[in-house]
Amino acid sequence: MTERERSNIREAKAFSNRAGASSRSSDEGFRWDGVDLLAYKEEGAAPFKAITRQVLFQRPELSCELRYFEMAPGGHSTFERHEHVHGVMIFRGRGLCLVGDEVREVAAPDLVFIPPMTWHQFRANAGEPFGFLCMVNAERDKPQLPTPEELAELKKSPAIAAFFAEAE
Amino acid sequence: MTERERSNIREAKAFSNRAGASSRSSDEGFRWDGVDLLAYKEEGAAPFKAITRQVLFQRPELSCELRYFEMAPGGHSTFERHEHVHGVMIFRGRGLCLVGDEVREVAAPDLVFIPPMTWHQFRANAGEPFGFLCMVNAERDKPQLPTPEELAELKKSPAIAAFFAEAE
Repeated sequence: MTERERSNIREAKAFSNRAGASSRSSDEGFRWDGVDLLAYKEEGAAPFKAITRQVLFQRPELSCELRYFEMAPGGHSTFERHEHVHGVMIFRGRGLCLVGDEVREVAAPDLVFIPPMTWHQFRANAGEPFGFLCMVNAERDKPQLPTPEELAELKKSPAIAAFFAEAE
Repeated sequence: MTERERSNIREAKAFSNRAGASSRSSDEGFRWDGVDLLAYKEEGAAPFKAITRQVLFQRPELSCELRYFEMAPGGHSTFERHEHVHGVMIFRGRGLCLVGDEVREVAAPDLVFIPPMTWHQFRANAGEPFGFLCMVNAERDKPQLPTPEELAELKKSPAIAAFFAEAE
């Protein structure tokens, strides 16, 4: 094991707006030494767009995990609900979030709590990358997607209808 | 319960370098709507200096807590060890950390893992406020302080001796 592998410290190794980047699309986003950049979910498993996942802490001694999700402009997480809860901190940029029947603009470093069985989604609707930290129990249930009927019912809320309309 | 209390979203409400601040000492640091600014520990319980604590997520549904600690320039956390581990992200500024026998300069958003029963301390040695997020199990053991004999033994490491010398 090398000195670097042995270390408990993982340096941040890439940042937004790095020198020489000629456009937003060449922005590498936040990365950490030794932390893999992962697909958000298995492709086709659920609707999502232009979002990546990095697992910052996942250890047998910790009963939670800390993940970092980053969306490119126009990207979004899956609209879903589950029994497990999320403790979220907006980490980069600004965007829109839906939690239950509440739709809000949020910006770093706002905090968002996702209660049990509460529909939620994050959207990078502000023309900039939008990233958040998410603390979650290591043991958790599988997310549920809305049925077409549930989605139609949810869209009876003007706030939720407007949230989805903005994205389309 | 008011609309604001009902919300799952807590806006960040104060930032570093606010307009009109005439010196570093008037810097309010990071604060969140509805999150109390707490003493780091009970005064006199253990050695620490110029450090505050805010509990960002502490919920019965989450098996971990997320806290934010911020040190004024020259401040430091307690030098201690315990069975429970910490998942730390440097959130603001830069400073020094000691983890086991490793002393490193760290800066936002570096990651630091504190393994079980490993001596550790954070120091705001760079003349600027230094803050970190800390994920920890909700159930945890009481921190241990070093005995004078243990401290003398630890200072046989040149890196650790230099770490403490810098602070004095």
